[in-house]
Amino acid sequence: MISKTSKFVAEMFGTMVLVLMGCGSAVIAGADGTTGVGLLGISFAFGLSVVAMAYAIGHISGCHINPAISIAMVAAGRMKMGEAVRYVIAQILGAIIGAGILYLIFTNHPGAEMKPWALGSNGWGTGYLDQYNTLAAFVAEFVFTFIFLMVILGSTSTKNINGGFAGLAIGFSLVLIHIVGIKITGVSVNPARSIGPAIFAGGESLTQLWLFIAAPVLGGIFAAFTYNFMIEKPESAN
Amino acid sequence: MISKTSKFVAEMFGTMVLVLMGCGSAVIAGADGTTGVGLLGISFAFGLSVVAMAYAIGHISGCHINPAISIAMVAAGRMKMGEAVRYVIAQILGAIIGAGILYLIFTNHPGAEMKPWALGSNGWGTGYLDQYNTLAAFVAEFVFTFIFLMVILGSTSTKNINGGFAGLAIGFSLVLIHIVGIKITGVSVNPARSIGPAIFAGGESLTQLWLFIAAPVLGGIFAAFTYNFMIEKPESAN
Amino acid sequence: MISKTSKFVAEMFGTMVLVLMGCGSAVIAGADGTTGVGLLGISFAFGLSVVAMAYAIGHISGCHINPAISIAMVAAGRMKMGEAVRYVIAQILGAIIGAGILYLIFTNHPGAEMKPWALGSNGWGTGYLDQYNTLAAFVAEFVFTFIFLMVILGSTSTKNINGGFAGLAIGFSLVLIHIVGIKITGVSVNPARSIGPAIFAGGESLTQLWLFIAAPVLGGIFAAFTYNFMIEKPESAN
Amino acid sequence: MISKTSKFVAEMFGTMVLVLMGCGSAVIAGADGTTGVGLLGISFAFGLSVVAMAYAIGHISGCHINPAISIAMVAAGRMKMGEAVRYVIAQILGAIIGAGILYLIFTNHPGAEMKPWALGSNGWGTGYLDQYNTLAAFVAEFVFTFIFLMVILGSTSTKNINGGFAGLAIGFSLVLIHIVGIKITGVSVNPARSIGPAIFAGGESLTQLWLFIAAPVLGGIFAAFTYNFMIEKPESAN
Repeated sequence: MISKTSKFVAEMFGTMVLVLMGCGSAVIAGADGTTGVGLLGISFAFGLSVVAMAYAIGHISGCHINPAISIAMVAAGRMKMGEAVRYVIAQILGAIIGAGILYLIFTNHPGAEMKPWALGSNGWGTGYLDQYNTLAAFVAEFVFTFIFLMVILGSTSTKNINGGFAGLAIGFSLVLIHIVGIKITGVSVNPARSIGPAIFAGGESLTQLWLFIAAPVLGGIFAAFTYNFMIEKPESAN
Repeated sequence: MISKTSKFVAEMFGTMVLVLMGCGSAVIAGADGTTGVGLLGISFAFGLSVVAMAYAIGHISGCHINPAISIAMVAAGRMKMGEAVRYVIAQILGAIIGAGILYLIFTNHPGAEMKPWALGSNGWGTGYLDQYNTLAAFVAEFVFTFIFLMVILGSTSTKNINGGFAGLAIGFSLVLIHIVGIKITGVSVNPARSIGPAIFAGGESLTQLWLFIAAPVLGGIFAAFTYNFMIEKPESAN
Repeated sequence: MISKTSKFVAEMFGTMVLVLMGCGSAVIAGADGTTGVGLLGISFAFGLSVVAMAYAIGHISGCHINPAISIAMVAAGRMKMGEAVRYVIAQILGAIIGAGILYLIFTNHPGAEMKPWALGSNGWGTGYLDQYNTLAAFVAEFVFTFIFLMVILGSTSTKNINGGFAGLAIGFSLVLIHIVGIKITGVSVNPARSIGPAIFAGGESLTQLWLFIAAPVLGGIFAAFTYNFMIEKPESAN
Repeated sequence: MISKTSKFVAEMFGTMVLVLMGCGSAVIAGADGTTGVGLLGISFAFGLSVVAMAYAIGHISGCHINPAISIAMVAAGRMKMGEAVRYVIAQILGAIIGAGILYLIFTNHPGAEMKPWALGSNGWGTGYLDQYNTLAAFVAEFVFTFIFLMVILGSTSTKNINGGFAGLAIGFSLVLIHIVGIKITGVSVNPARSIGPAIFAGGESLTQLWLFIAAPVLGGIFAAFTYNFMIEKPESAN
């Protein structure tokens, strides 16, 4: 029996890693493919954070490190509400710590400056990357989280005999989502990942937070219902 | 027993993801390696879509998400014709939905324009990437699909004790095929993946569709016979 | 019991794929990281060819697709000489077929020209990439093949409980070797992979072939002895 | 029972590969993403070295190839001090051999010159990459090694049923750490990896070595205590 404290620490640690390393790849290493790691490198940073955490803490907490996942697990009947609340608190705390460590490291080199949407904040519209509008941003975050949760629900199904590969499949699907979506919103699909940097960046990063909470949560819940009703009926009385 | 509906929905969903994310990587993120994800990023997008789907829906439908695979499976004696027909319908529907979502997102940002061979359409000849001729395009699509199906048939063989790795091997082989082939045809090896974007792009994307149906299907059937006669004889009366 | 013919066809097919796709990534997609797949993309092409083949034909022939591996397996006492001879013949035939298909596709587009060291040929010295000298080329090919074979011997040892991962470990080690070594010799570590393109390219590709036969074979044999005497003594009378 | 000599040779060999191939990717192939393998390619070189070694020698020595890991394993109660001392000696010897082979190859091509922090040496401050200060360098190396060890401790826990995936998870986490951290210190998280090139490069590479010994060792020990006290209590009397 794994204690509540262990699960809380694991979720906090895992989300800290995701935010520090995912956002750090953009902030420290850079989105330019010639002098930095490029969009592909940033995509691998987010996804490999999940691969690493899945096999490091998966046996402790299941490695959600994302409130949209914990809430969707409740909707899918795979988790109790009380536990999900504790998970979400740990995830948000971890995200803030991760963004804080990134802020500490980044500001200790010459020329570091905090621009709008700093520290890898998510956003959209005028001035943010390819300037997609609100509709595109919402649809993208909703659909990407829907796809992400479908991968999670299917690869961790008790009827899936290749469950050991779930960590790779889920992590690689996050690489995939970032390859496609960075130019739209920077890719959230995870409210905690958006909250962390926004607290330090302020400005539009904060005022745009609502979309990165609403769209991922709704996309995740939609996946839970789609999976249970259309793909694989959950076993009753389990 | 998994229902016909579950399989249909799974194949439709999986092909939607492949087209939205694979083509989306080219259309939204871009083929330039400095400012976009580059050809390597696009290659990973297509291949990781398959990795993600293989572990998400493989236990439901086998994760074909490609009419050339379903038809080759019939040729190899591993699937019944009636089921293959339902799979192909689901795949084409999914591809159209995926291209539609991509169209919706992409057109909601400044400067979006639909050029010839738009939305990641496949093509060849004058005006298409490195302008390979029809012979090269046909040979490439035939050989690449042949290789792709050989990987699928071998890695999912009941005599292969490492069957759990099939999803990785098949997905990575699609990364490989895209690394080599994007400049020739954009890489199809999958009629549904070509049909989806072509319906929205029109023009030469539609008139060139025949090659991306014929070459992958023939290459897949050739692999089925080669595998069964030259590599591993299927068990009789199974 | 798998027939000799099945093994021969499997080795021929696998080596064809390695040469067509590995060399094809350099010839068709290009070593420039902005407009092509870059050195990293070429590295993944060679390595993912091995990953794909390992899980496709590993259960048939063991997936050597490289004369240096078959010869090292004889030196390590894991294979009989007669079988190794058949494997090497199949591998060289497959490599020539792979280079031939690449030649056919590549020459069917505008501006295709056969330069010195064409079709992804290996080489060194004046005019070849970073112009490393013969000593560096020999040491690099010897050491890289030594490392490659150590990975193969260790990951496929009967005492290694994670044997299913060998295909990934071996393929990824070939990605690694290409990341480091392309600028030195283009990376062979495989006589068949060098012979295939050299036959079509001619010139220095042919006169330099000796090094890409001698260094990989010697490096492989050195690994066989090092592994058996220093790392893990083979079980007697097995 | 695996002999002490086998373990010593395995650790020496593995660390040689890590230094030769990891540092070699930067020195031979280059950090420019257009003409070289880029920061992403270097990141994959270090991480895939660990993946390859994990499955090649993991069953012999556990594949530490890093003094910070061996020391943390002592702190975590998973290894005896005497064995750790032998491991660390083997690792440092292997790192020096790896840097020596790299020096031999690299200096045998036109235009090779030994600049400050040559051969992939770690460093920080004025003249080193993005010129992060000592605080940032220490925090980064401490936190990155902490994360690295948490992945190692969790993925190799006897209670983790997916232990076979540890090699991939640990290697990919090193890819991740390099994606984020190269511009800060070049990324060490491994005293042996820093000592090898520094001996050949001299100058500031040597005078800055203290940080790449202290920070990784402290970060690793902190992870050992955090894991045992906060995540998963070790079984007593084991």
